[in-house]
Amino acid sequence: TIEEKLKEKLAVLNHYERAITLLNWDMYTAVPRLGYQGMADTVAFLSQRQFELATSDEFYALLGEAMEPTVFEALDEGMQYSVRTLYRDQTKQRRIPVDFVKRYVEAQSVSRRVWEEAKTGNDFSMFAPHLQAMIDLTREKCSYTDPDQDVYNVLLDQYEEGMHAEIIDSVFGELKEGLLPLLEKLRNKPHNPSRLYERTYPLHQQEKVQQLLLEYIGFNFSAGTTAQSMHPFTLGFSRNDVRVTNHFHLNNPISAMFSAIHEGGHAIFDQNVDPALMGTEADSCRYMGLHESQSRFYENILGRRRSFWEPVYDKIKLLLPEMSDIPLDEFVSEINYIHPSFIRTEADEVTYCLHIILRYEIEQAIFRDGAKADELPELWNVKTQELLGITPSGDSEGILQDMHWSDGSFGYFPSYLLGNIYDGLFLETMTDELGDIDDILSQGEIQTITKWLNSKIHRYGSLRLPAKVIEEVCHRPLSARPLLAYFSKKYDAVKA
Amino acid sequence: TIEEKLKEKLAVLNHYERAITLLNWDMYTAVPRLGYQGMADTVAFLSQRQFELATSDEFYALLGEAMEPTVFEALDEGMQYSVRTLYRDQTKQRRIPVDFVKRYVEAQSVSRRVWEEAKTGNDFSMFAPHLQAMIDLTREKCSYTDPDQDVYNVLLDQYEEGMHAEIIDSVFGELKEGLLPLLEKLRNKPHNPSRLYERTYPLHQQEKVQQLLLEYIGFNFSAGTTAQSMHPFTLGFSRNDVRVTNHFHLNNPISAMFSAIHEGGHAIFDQNVDPALMGTEADSCRYMGLHESQSRFYENILGRRRSFWEPVYDKIKLLLPEMSDIPLDEFVSEINYIHPSFIRTEADEVTYCLHIILRYEIEQAIFRDGAKADELPELWNVKTQELLGITPSGDSEGILQDMHWSDGSFGYFPSYLLGNIYDGLFLETMTDELGDIDDILSQGEIQTITKWLNSKIHRYGSLRLPAKVIEEVCHRPLSARPLLAYFSKKYDAVKA
Repeated sequence: TIEEKLKEKLAVLNHYERAITLLNWDMYTAVPRLGYQGMADTVAFLSQRQFELATSDEFYALLGEAMEPTVFEALDEGMQYSVRTLYRDQTKQRRIPVDFVKRYVEAQSVSRRVWEEAKTGNDFSMFAPHLQAMIDLTREKCSYTDPDQDVYNVLLDQYEEGMHAEIIDSVFGELKEGLLPLLEKLRNKPHNPSRLYERTYPLHQQEKVQQLLLEYIGFNFSAGTTAQSMHPFTLGFSRNDVRVTNHFHLNNPISAMFSAIHEGGHAIFDQNVDPALMGTEADSCRYMGLHESQSRFYENILGRRRSFWEPVYDKIKLLLPEMSDIPLDEFVSEINYIHPSFIRTEADEVTYCLHIILRYEIEQAIFRDGAKADELPELWNVKTQELLGITPSGDSEGILQDMHWSDGSFGYFPSYLLGNIYDGLFLETMTDELGDIDDILSQGEIQTITKWLNSKIHRYGSLRLPAKVIEEVCHRPLSARPLLAYFSKKYDAVKA
Repeated sequence: TIEEKLKEKLAVLNHYERAITLLNWDMYTAVPRLGYQGMADTVAFLSQRQFELATSDEFYALLGEAMEPTVFEALDEGMQYSVRTLYRDQTKQRRIPVDFVKRYVEAQSVSRRVWEEAKTGNDFSMFAPHLQAMIDLTREKCSYTDPDQDVYNVLLDQYEEGMHAEIIDSVFGELKEGLLPLLEKLRNKPHNPSRLYERTYPLHQQEKVQQLLLEYIGFNFSAGTTAQSMHPFTLGFSRNDVRVTNHFHLNNPISAMFSAIHEGGHAIFDQNVDPALMGTEADSCRYMGLHESQSRFYENILGRRRSFWEPVYDKIKLLLPEMSDIPLDEFVSEINYIHPSFIRTEADEVTYCLHIILRYEIEQAIFRDGAKADELPELWNVKTQELLGITPSGDSEGILQDMHWSDGSFGYFPSYLLGNIYDGLFLETMTDELGDIDDILSQGEIQTITKWLNSKIHRYGSLRLPAKVIEEVCHRPLSARPLLAYFSKKYDAVKA
């Protein structure tokens, strides 16, 4: 039958995917320096095989047959999702001229390399023509895949399906309006750097803290493992094998703790997708904003509360005796220190929002207003002053800090902040349904929260679009107000 | 050209091999419990693809064309080796009926499983019919691949190409004759168990000792890495990526030290094959005995000398302060304690030889004299008494202890001991050429020894058969006398 043929093809694609994913995992976590190229060559070989199969006329015809209503309606939800998205993606993909793909990939590879050099050399001018090329190629690509559609909406849709600039304009605008006065109030709050950073914390003990925190929030070690890498990330093979990495700093144990909680949040999502979806395209969440909402819920909404740490802080001090004279209040104050700074990835939970709004406004300038690459550093600096009240001393701590644009990932940044905004709504709904979050956490009942997220969000994998999740879980429209309410309650209280 | 086509095919086979090897590596070192099956399924899928390619008529025809003298002679050494061995192996492989392969694989899978149960339950009788089946299937397989040849010689040739039972009879006989009286002298030497085992050694510190020892003997961390697994092993992707695992015991730091040195010896071989052989079938050593000679040279010939430890013992005590009151002499005495025991993998360097001779004599009983599976436990116990002077209390510490026979790996065991015997010859030659080994080691010049082995043995990969290596390096015939001379000098001196 068509369904059997489909399942067979999906299984083959999944085998290639698993091997490629493992090769990548190895390249980030284990491979010795001289072995890297061999792994990269095998990734290229297997990716080519997988690509040939995924884009074959035969497979496209099979998907077409499966789209016929009589066939389609007999499929289960996971297979319906697979057929619909693969058919749609292939239909778009097949509109792209072969020579364009070649031009795009080559430009991308050069652009990434030049961006690295430019960042190291603090010199935007050498990167400008390549950034402009990526902008132009991105417009061209959208003109093939989605003719007559607004380019920026097409880009947003890639990362957060169903999202439109009109919606983002509204929620980001609301958030900006609320945050600027809040930041004004917090900006000059005195803060003494904690004595925490004056000590040295052995890495193998920090690893034990990571293990403790992951277990605490609900990471399942029977279906996951950990490793070290340059930058922390999460990678999933299936709900049965989800891996997180971390990076440990000798004098700063907090950094790895929060990376563990953040990546753990991503992993808990993937580990709790309905087993019935395994092997389908819906078996993990493909929406960046929704995925990020879960990592940030653990990292910020839960992880920055005093009540989150109450049940585990003493255990952590046993593992890190260097911290034993740091009272919980000093630790909690340190992890909630709000202050404008230049680098997005190091920002606190309040100013982080403004870092994303900055990038969103610049992407709007490019794709809505036609701004050119060489106008962007000036725009970046002006907007940083407007939003954060500070101006970068050079492009490395300004427009060159993130790699996303260098490889054409325009439209990705907003999804990070959408995650935080969704979290405001999830928090409000959860509090209505479960009661006060601090009570739950301080009683050591964090599993109640994890189970709520599992049953409301995680189990569906990709089956529900983000907007649908918000509607079904929260029964209220998308808005930045719940996030603002969370910030106001938390930081006005701190100030009082 | 034919050569280009060949290289392309070999490259494709290598890509599959690399992915399969990495999946296996992951299954031994990292995968979470629930993720195991997914990895195994992908191994099966990729192995099937690789098998189809390697056994295709098209590839066989290509190999046949390359065997034509005019083509063959234009190839470089590595490609000549590849063509010759692949053509020979395929020619044999193609004589096996398809239904036999199915029967063999199924019987093997059941036999492995029953062996595990039998070992756990200390009950040979349940395993006997499966062992008999593997014996019968092995005979049948040889009757297809190598008709009219002596079965046991065919088996030996798989693991140590060119080796024959006549040669082994002679060198093992010589060794047995020399060892029995030596063991008689050493058997009743008094020995107090070291205080070493009364302490607890943190695993992360033992890992640092492993790192130190691997660097000390010449393992290249730019072309290799380490991990933990249930049993230590070495696995190579190419000379640029060779990985060793270890297993750490909380109360016994010596076990992991010697595993590190042993696996490090294997790895140093693979890391030092001539780069010109990369991507060919000769790019690592496919002869088990010769490979084992290198791991055992580091482990025994070098690693059990006082002079080996002199340059590093103080550094190890800094990493393991729990050992700081153990003098070097006590440590050296502990690692050279000779005493008959039941388990091969835990045996000292002298009685180890007798463990292998036992297995060789039993394989001879099976394949030369037609002994049946159910006669073997009795034979095992009688021979253990004859060789080691002890009798196992049950089959778990007797005939069931090793997995090799359960999956049909008959003829494998002798290669371990051939490794030791080769080492006797290498030691004699090295001493002639480099001078006294203890002088070199105690001066911290172990790299001189590693470089000698690199240039005499490692660089050739599989290009030279073991017998050829002995001839070219040692200029003397294969014999057990050098090994016996090493034992006599060492242990008679100890006794005196």
